[in-house]
Amino acid sequence: MNYKKINRFLSGILIFEAVFMIPAMLICIYDKETKVALSFLATITIAIILAGILYLFSRNPSSGFHPREGLVCASTCWILISLVGCLPFFISRQIPSFIDALFEIVSGFTTTGASILSDVESLSRGLLYWRSFSHWLGGMGVLVLLMVFVPKSDHNTGSTMHLLRAESPGPNVGKLVPRMKKTALVLYGIYMAMTILNFIFLFAGGMPLFDSVCTAFGTAGTGGFGIKNYSMASYSPYLQNVTTVFMLLFGINFSCYYLILTKHLLSVWRDEELRAYLGVFVVSTALITLNIYHLYSSVTTGLRHAAFQVSTVMTTTGFATADFDKWPIFSKQLMLCLMFVGASAGSTAGGLKFQRLLLLLKNLRRHIHRTLYPNKVQVVRMNGQKVSEKILEGTDLYLIAYSLILIFSFMLISIDNFSITTNFSAVVACFNNIGPGLDAVGPTCNFGGFSIFSKLVLIFDMLAGRLEILPLLGMLSISTWKRR
Amino acid sequence: MNYKKINRFLSGILIFEAVFMIPAMLICIYDKETKVALSFLATITIAIILAGILYLFSRNPSSGFHPREGLVCASTCWILISLVGCLPFFISRQIPSFIDALFEIVSGFTTTGASILSDVESLSRGLLYWRSFSHWLGGMGVLVLLMVFVPKSDHNTGSTMHLLRAESPGPNVGKLVPRMKKTALVLYGIYMAMTILNFIFLFAGGMPLFDSVCTAFGTAGTGGFGIKNYSMASYSPYLQNVTTVFMLLFGINFSCYYLILTKHLLSVWRDEELRAYLGVFVVSTALITLNIYHLYSSVTTGLRHAAFQVSTVMTTTGFATADFDKWPIFSKQLMLCLMFVGASAGSTAGGLKFQRLLLLLKNLRRHIHRTLYPNKVQVVRMNGQKVSEKILEGTDLYLIAYSLILIFSFMLISIDNFSITTNFSAVVACFNNIGPGLDAVGPTCNFGGFSIFSKLVLIFDMLAGRLEILPLLGMLSISTWKRR
Repeated sequence: MNYKKINRFLSGILIFEAVFMIPAMLICIYDKETKVALSFLATITIAIILAGILYLFSRNPSSGFHPREGLVCASTCWILISLVGCLPFFISRQIPSFIDALFEIVSGFTTTGASILSDVESLSRGLLYWRSFSHWLGGMGVLVLLMVFVPKSDHNTGSTMHLLRAESPGPNVGKLVPRMKKTALVLYGIYMAMTILNFIFLFAGGMPLFDSVCTAFGTAGTGGFGIKNYSMASYSPYLQNVTTVFMLLFGINFSCYYLILTKHLLSVWRDEELRAYLGVFVVSTALITLNIYHLYSSVTTGLRHAAFQVSTVMTTTGFATADFDKWPIFSKQLMLCLMFVGASAGSTAGGLKFQRLLLLLKNLRRHIHRTLYPNKVQVVRMNGQKVSEKILEGTDLYLIAYSLILIFSFMLISIDNFSITTNFSAVVACFNNIGPGLDAVGPTCNFGGFSIFSKLVLIFDMLAGRLEILPLLGMLSISTWKRR
Repeated sequence: MNYKKINRFLSGILIFEAVFMIPAMLICIYDKETKVALSFLATITIAIILAGILYLFSRNPSSGFHPREGLVCASTCWILISLVGCLPFFISRQIPSFIDALFEIVSGFTTTGASILSDVESLSRGLLYWRSFSHWLGGMGVLVLLMVFVPKSDHNTGSTMHLLRAESPGPNVGKLVPRMKKTALVLYGIYMAMTILNFIFLFAGGMPLFDSVCTAFGTAGTGGFGIKNYSMASYSPYLQNVTTVFMLLFGINFSCYYLILTKHLLSVWRDEELRAYLGVFVVSTALITLNIYHLYSSVTTGLRHAAFQVSTVMTTTGFATADFDKWPIFSKQLMLCLMFVGASAGSTAGGLKFQRLLLLLKNLRRHIHRTLYPNKVQVVRMNGQKVSEKILEGTDLYLIAYSLILIFSFMLISIDNFSITTNFSAVVACFNNIGPGLDAVGPTCNFGGFSIFSKLVLIFDMLAGRLEILPLLGMLSISTWKRR
């Protein structure tokens, strides 16, 4: 294991985190929240000292950087930034329990949006900003951002590719452009431009400045932390509709935007994942509207709430304008099923991802054909291109690991004696990085009632969901640590 | 598609069914239940006429019999015997709705044991016998039985192998002895001997003759239809314990018994599936006993109920001595999870089967190692033998098809507006051929409240679970019916 190289990456990440905390601290100073400002300052100091120590242990690293180093580095990085990132909440005593603070920031970085707070509005604005910003940073990935600043020598050794693979969502991580560094730059460029566009639409629609910034961060990262106790229900229908559209946009594979920028419109139009994603959105919204419109004053209102809630769950954002836990069983179950699908690979969303689902379906269809006609050669294609057997196998096994973690977590948190629906939807909502579930963790409730043990299980689930399982399982595997 | 050969098999199966109805008819005559006896007579006549017609369309068949013919033949066979088998209930008006009667007999043949009846004891004894006997017949498989009587020429063309593959449970169907016909004979021989042994233990323990026969049928087929409204709770602790043990025994791969008979004890002792199966039984029973013993008069009583309920759910039988829907959440959730695992491949039980679960876990472990060390060759072994990639892929894809059917059924039956727990556990209980679920379909309730549409969905699930999905999906696939 190339510890020195891993330490160097971790050191860089901590410096990033310290820098990103400065705006939050400035907001506290502006608001005259001295205690919170000081807790940010303390955290920044701790982060810099830790980064320094890690840097000391990273001099003259060897050049070897294998897939296992990539997995370990990605997992450690996410755990480390969470442990440091939760300190402002804890030190300022605005969240007095350390595990609660950790839950909150892991929920932030993993873009889950599940909260342990019953009264969000009592939090000081600096912390609200930091919470929402953690969504933005976690959405595209902290390591992807680091790639932009990594020296050329590291890119040549392939270490950046292994890191990007470990952090990026989807069954098959490709480069947009031949150079990794430029790929990371293009991705963050698109991401930032779209976030600013989202902000403008919100601010122009009458949302206060601070609210617009935080909501844009939460939408872009498909996170879902609100800054109001009633989430998005407090805002006008226009602002809700803007958010519906932008959530959907951030759930699209970012390579589609790159293709649009480079004028390959036909490939975007023919993209199978995009078609499936939008198709499921339209059909689900229609079905739910039919099922719920009688609960609202008009069909239009029903449609608005249906579209918003479907969009928020499919993109694993987790904002809410309506309490879908009060909807009829059909709509509730459909929402529960949509929690699994997630949005597109290569977007900021969690969940299984449409690309994976399409590969699973196509592979299953081939399996049936193969059983019927054993002697015929059959390949699986995606957007006209042959999919390698390695990716197909990886996708199948992803579903297996996914099911196992789901079932184990579901059993582990049952000792808290909440209802089956609560336990199941809590795990589903955390593991798919959505946020609210059903029953005791429904859109109007929070995760504060769980025991410390259950919260730790759910923290693991959020991280496993964001990093797509393998990095965490790899880190827990004994053979990673064997000397060879 | 070799329709003539398929017709010949179907014709044979119908004659079987007609013959097996005779004992039920005789019981009705003995009980002076003329109306029910006549409805059995009518059904037997219909079966023979149908068999005759099918035979007429099966003369001079060509010899080709491919995997697709095996799948289509197995599915059609199971649908046909269900459509005919439900007639005695319907004609006698003891179950006035045709769909209810069909649900009941499909639940019988597939060894599910889910019932639409609220008062089982009001059914006449001939019908109770037929219901329980359908478990016994469905447990080992009607087509397997047919193999014993099929002429040698059919065995040579491989058609029997394709049929057996389509009907037998488990990821990898092997022959015990080189000849298929003898394999079928050995299997049914062991099955019959164990059923008789079970009957003797029950009868000697003071259970009435009729009850002993029906209970032995229900246990052997891991079916679970009771003949009392309180299932097995009406019987003594001794009889309950005997049933616990025999359910467990019928959940073991029958090839283990063949190995014992041929004195290969060491291979049985080392069998990984057997170890996992018994291990999970012991651990689950212990955990549930710890969780529930305070609800009962003594720890022993708690242990008896825990062992019985774990055994009944793991072997997918579905008898009950206690209402586990009243247990604490941890135990309820553990029961729900155990519903998925099923028992061993090559037994009469439903569910995913331990062999499959072991293969999934081993394949996942290999996948993690492969990601860590891409250049190392790694194989998956089971009981020391290398498992082929084809079987591993088939097992992965089984889980995918399984998940899809589960989710679709869960959504489809939600229109009846039962609770999420009811809908989910109803699908899980039917699809895994268990019987009772939780909430409105718990051990003391029944499936009578569902709409006709939902019952049809659950009938499909029971058949898909018993035939392990592929035959039904294969039959529904367009390419099966294309001329090539």
